[in-house]
Amino acid sequence: MSASPTTNQGRATRERIVRAAAELIAERGATGTSLDDVRAATAASKSQLYHYFGDKRGLVEAVVGHQCAGVLGFQARALAAVSDWESLERWAELMVTGVEQRGGRGGCPIGTLTAALADTDDGLRISLNEAFRAWGDAIRGALARLRDNRLITAEADLDRLTTIMLAAIEGGLLLAKASRDPEPLRTALDGAITQFRANAPPRRRQPSA
Amino acid sequence: MSASPTTNQGRATRERIVRAAAELIAERGATGTSLDDVRAATAASKSQLYHYFGDKRGLVEAVVGHQCAGVLGFQARALAAVSDWESLERWAELMVTGVEQRGGRGGCPIGTLTAALADTDDGLRISLNEAFRAWGDAIRGALARLRDNRLITAEADLDRLTTIMLAAIEGGLLLAKASRDPEPLRTALDGAITQFRANAPPRRRQPSA
Repeated sequence: MSASPTTNQGRATRERIVRAAAELIAERGATGTSLDDVRAATAASKSQLYHYFGDKRGLVEAVVGHQCAGVLGFQARALAAVSDWESLERWAELMVTGVEQRGGRGGCPIGTLTAALADTDDGLRISLNEAFRAWGDAIRGALARLRDNRLITAEADLDRLTTIMLAAIEGGLLLAKASRDPEPLRTALDGAITQFRANAPPRRRQPSA
Repeated sequence: MSASPTTNQGRATRERIVRAAAELIAERGATGTSLDDVRAATAASKSQLYHYFGDKRGLVEAVVGHQCAGVLGFQARALAAVSDWESLERWAELMVTGVEQRGGRGGCPIGTLTAALADTDDGLRISLNEAFRAWGDAIRGALARLRDNRLITAEADLDRLTTIMLAAIEGGLLLAKASRDPEPLRTALDGAITQFRANAPPRRRQPSA
C-alpha cells in the first residue's frame, strides 16, 4: 500500500524517515522498534508513515534496502580498487579502521539484520541473501583481477575463496562487537588473505626477462 | 530482585520458563518478546516471573546464560574428542549436519544474541564475550592436542588459529542462515581447517622407525 514519492521534497522526507528508522532498528532491533518510536524520532505524521511505507513491515523492508545499499555501495567502490596484494591489504585495513573508529561497536548492518530477521521473514531473508551474493560478486571480481595479474593461479577456486572471505568478515565483525576490540576482525581477515596467498603461483627461480 | 529456586519443583518451573523464553527470543528477538508473551507461552503467573527473574532484563539474562551453557556444553564435549585430523573433520561435520537438520535456520544462538544485544547492554555483552572466550579455550585445547601429537608444529600460533576458526564458525553459520543452505558453513570450516593443516610439520623423506 506504500507509494513512491514523486517530488524532491517527498523523496527527502522518505529518506530522512528511513535513516532515522535504520538507526533505531540498529540499536533496538526491528521487533523492538515501533512506528510510534519512528514518529517520535522524526516528527513524521501517522499518515506520512502510512503513505510512504504502508505498515511496519514496509518500513523494515525499506530499512533493509537502505542498509544493504549503504554497505554494498561502500564495498563495491573499495573492492574495485583491489588489483594486487597491497591494495587487498588496504581494503582489509579500511574495514578494521572503521570498527576501531566505532569503538568495536556496530558489527555488520546486513549481518545484524540477518541474525534478527532471516528465520521469520522469508522475503527479507531473500533480500539480505541477495546483498551477500552481490558483495560476494564484488570480492570475486577482486580475486579475478589478482588472477589476471598472475598473483594467484588460474586453477584457484574463486567461489571457495569468496565464501571464506565473506565468512571471515561477518564472523570477525561479530567477535569484534562482542569484545569491543577490532583485533578478532584483523586476525580473521588476515587469515582469509593468507588463504588467498596460498594460491599464488610457485615463484620462478630465474626472472623470465 | 530475583530469587534462586530452592526446591526441585521450583528449579523445574524456572527451567521450563527459561527454555520457553529462549525459544521466543530466538524467533522474535529480545526486544520483541514481552513478559506477557512469556506468560502466555508458559502459563506462568506474573508473580512467578517476578519471583524468579525480577524483570524483563533478568529474564533475558537467564536466557543468555541458558543459550551460552547449551552451546558451550555441546562444543566442550565435541572438541574434547578432537586429537587428530580425522576427529577434527568429524567435529566440523557435526556442526554442518546440525545446520542441515535445521534446514539452514537458526544460526548460532550466542551469535544471534550478540548481534542483537552487544551494543546496548554492556553486562550481557560481557557474558556473551565470555562465552566466546570459553569456546575459544576449547578450540585452543584441541589445537594443543594436535600440536602434542606432532600434527602441527610447536611454532604454530594457536591464538591466531583459534580466532580464525571461531570467526569461520560464526560467519559460516550466518551465511547459512541467510541462504538456508549449509554449504557456506562447510566451506568456511574447511577453509579454517586448511589453515590448521598449513601448520603441519614438513614431511620426513624417510620414516624415522
